[in-house]
Amino acid sequence: MVGTRAYVEDLGRRARAASAALATASTETKNAALLEMADAVEREAPALEAANRLDLEAAEKSGVSTAMRQRLALDKKAIAEICDGLRQVASLPDPVGEVLGAWERPNGLRISKVRVPIGVIAMIYEARPNVTPDAAALCIKSGNAVILRGGREALHSNIALARLLRNAAAAKGLPGDSLQLVERPEHEAVNELLTLNAYIDLVIPRGGEALIRKVTELSTIPVIKHYRGVCHVYVDRSADLDMAADIVVNAKVQKPAVCNAAEALLVHEEIAPVFLPRIAELLRARGVELRGDAGARAIVPDMKAATDDDWGREYLDLILAVRVVRNIEEAIAHIARHGSQHSDAIVAKDTGAAERFLREVDSSAVFWNASTRFNDGGQFGMGAEIGISTDRIHARGPMALPELTIYKYVVRGTGQVRE
Amino acid sequence: MVGTRAYVEDLGRRARAASAALATASTETKNAALLEMADAVEREAPALEAANRLDLEAAEKSGVSTAMRQRLALDKKAIAEICDGLRQVASLPDPVGEVLGAWERPNGLRISKVRVPIGVIAMIYEARPNVTPDAAALCIKSGNAVILRGGREALHSNIALARLLRNAAAAKGLPGDSLQLVERPEHEAVNELLTLNAYIDLVIPRGGEALIRKVTELSTIPVIKHYRGVCHVYVDRSADLDMAADIVVNAKVQKPAVCNAAEALLVHEEIAPVFLPRIAELLRARGVELRGDAGARAIVPDMKAATDDDWGREYLDLILAVRVVRNIEEAIAHIARHGSQHSDAIVAKDTGAAERFLREVDSSAVFWNASTRFNDGGQFGMGAEIGISTDRIHARGPMALPELTIYKYVVRGTGQVRE
Repeated sequence: MVGTRAYVEDLGRRARAASAALATASTETKNAALLEMADAVEREAPALEAANRLDLEAAEKSGVSTAMRQRLALDKKAIAEICDGLRQVASLPDPVGEVLGAWERPNGLRISKVRVPIGVIAMIYEARPNVTPDAAALCIKSGNAVILRGGREALHSNIALARLLRNAAAAKGLPGDSLQLVERPEHEAVNELLTLNAYIDLVIPRGGEALIRKVTELSTIPVIKHYRGVCHVYVDRSADLDMAADIVVNAKVQKPAVCNAAEALLVHEEIAPVFLPRIAELLRARGVELRGDAGARAIVPDMKAATDDDWGREYLDLILAVRVVRNIEEAIAHIARHGSQHSDAIVAKDTGAAERFLREVDSSAVFWNASTRFNDGGQFGMGAEIGISTDRIHARGPMALPELTIYKYVVRGTGQVRE
Repeated sequence: MVGTRAYVEDLGRRARAASAALATASTETKNAALLEMADAVEREAPALEAANRLDLEAAEKSGVSTAMRQRLALDKKAIAEICDGLRQVASLPDPVGEVLGAWERPNGLRISKVRVPIGVIAMIYEARPNVTPDAAALCIKSGNAVILRGGREALHSNIALARLLRNAAAAKGLPGDSLQLVERPEHEAVNELLTLNAYIDLVIPRGGEALIRKVTELSTIPVIKHYRGVCHVYVDRSADLDMAADIVVNAKVQKPAVCNAAEALLVHEEIAPVFLPRIAELLRARGVELRGDAGARAIVPDMKAATDDDWGREYLDLILAVRVVRNIEEAIAHIARHGSQHSDAIVAKDTGAAERFLREVDSSAVFWNASTRFNDGGQFGMGAEIGISTDRIHARGPMALPELTIYKYVVRGTGQVRE
């Protein structure tokens, strides 16, 4: 068996070779491969379930949480969702070749700016095996070769999925190496991957804070992070309180374990005496624990006291930090200080206050009278997404197909030289 | 004196605070500051020249090359160019606030995608002090705070420039900390800067290979590299040979020390016997040393033999590697293997060959019948540029004002929640 570095370098070399073919592959070929992948996943469902059973049994033995086992499971529903996802990506427009702009210079040079794939993308993620086909589909449709490194807990499932997807790609004329899985479980494989600058153009980590930190520290390749969402809802004094209640409840409880769920509620002091008791009752009825500052606890005394640690925390759970603010300035300053520039909302009738919030709060998505839960590629109408970027270069917010591309300048002349 | 880390952290904290004000500063305020900067540089020219003299004297004592001393000099011409540059940036459109797209969802949510500044940018560069005002102007116009770290050799010049620019910014109502210079010469200051993730959003290194490598290895902050340009001109068998000669001469000798100058010439074997002797004579008359493969030397026998090291080398000098290729496939494969995805050109009358080259050669700019020297923000009509990105995310090729921004999604609703 070759060493880890040689193993990973070989993956890189193969991916680079595949990416050249993928970059010029036709939309028809790419779509045919994605549809064949969906068919193959359906056809081979029993084999996938058998491989998944090995992961589930190992998980059971090592005593992982029920939540973890649920995320690991490739049951009939999960498999159907994988197939739907692959077919949906096939139905999305191909971003490659799109002309982003074209102009002519006074010297007659005709310049166009054309979308091209990024090249080779490495995805590093945790337990959920459905990321394997989801990420592969998005990368391949956008003309990128992908190297996938999933969680150790899902290794059997991922190996079975990757083989099947590779065969499907090859059956329709794409290089099998369009997608490759790091099959070796050792941590060193990730470390080596992150310094393979000659072969990998972009690393996308998806997972918990520890994973993202590690990747950011070790990688010499550009990284786009999908990091924490510490999302706020600010209820202005001008808010429609029914609307505010609906939005706060939705942002907190509709799916608390995701990055665009609300983690903190800021309430203007003028309406706090009316709004807070009401929202506290609604949230508690849904099992939400509230942690308030002194102002909030003066109004709802049986609220747990928030500590300094509660501001800026991503609970990913049925917990909400609550603070009473004197004005919109204080709300905006709180978000600037404690937020993670992910998704923040204002509920207000006052257009001036709302527009100020939208302008000054610098998050990947800012909402006026809508739930933070809408910061999502599907909800924005962009189709499937590979994640929600919390970085400030290349892409912010949902990363769908166009965000997995870059561009080149194509310049047509008639013999021009520079003076 | 505080330690290096504390010193650099303080710069970061100030920059972050300034960036919030800059992000919402009006175009008028930013332009007024840039014009005041130009006036101040003109007014204070004698003080700048005096500071520069200290750097030049130190350079002389340490025996640096004439080329280096030329790059270091802030003479009347350099100062006039700095003022022109500042005024030109003031005249360019402000990218901040541009609406990149707007659409409505079936549920009534109105989404718009709006350009915003990146935030805080750190520029790390080498000797030329004119980079200080050039980079500051581009960053400030695009609403970013900037931390500048110039070469040690230019420290007196840079300190004088930065103080003057800061005062000018403050005089027109921008935070003085919109631009800050790392005034401490020690290397540790750069190392600390590169891990200041809480305060810096993007690092842009400009300079030689060693600098770029170091920054890439040490930075935990996103980096956009302005790296090597190993540019090729391929002369197809269908080329107009007069045009080919003009383009090759221009691409090689018009400014050999820059990244978009040609470093290698690939000639189709059918026209090599006619073209090579002719281009060899033209280039030699301009002092260019040719280094050929066996095919080229069979035609021009007194050409120096190229070694393996010559392919893929960035000479930045009057040297050109020359190879005879059997066909366009071989030319494209050579560029894929040895090029740096910067700027590559084909000279051809054959449209099919040209379009294939433009499609398959994956460089930041690909040229048909034009010199590689046109890969430049000014030449593309984008105005001033901060450099030419060789990365494959965020921006490729010339980085002008829009490339120093990112976007956020602004979502306006009427109480929508997610089902």
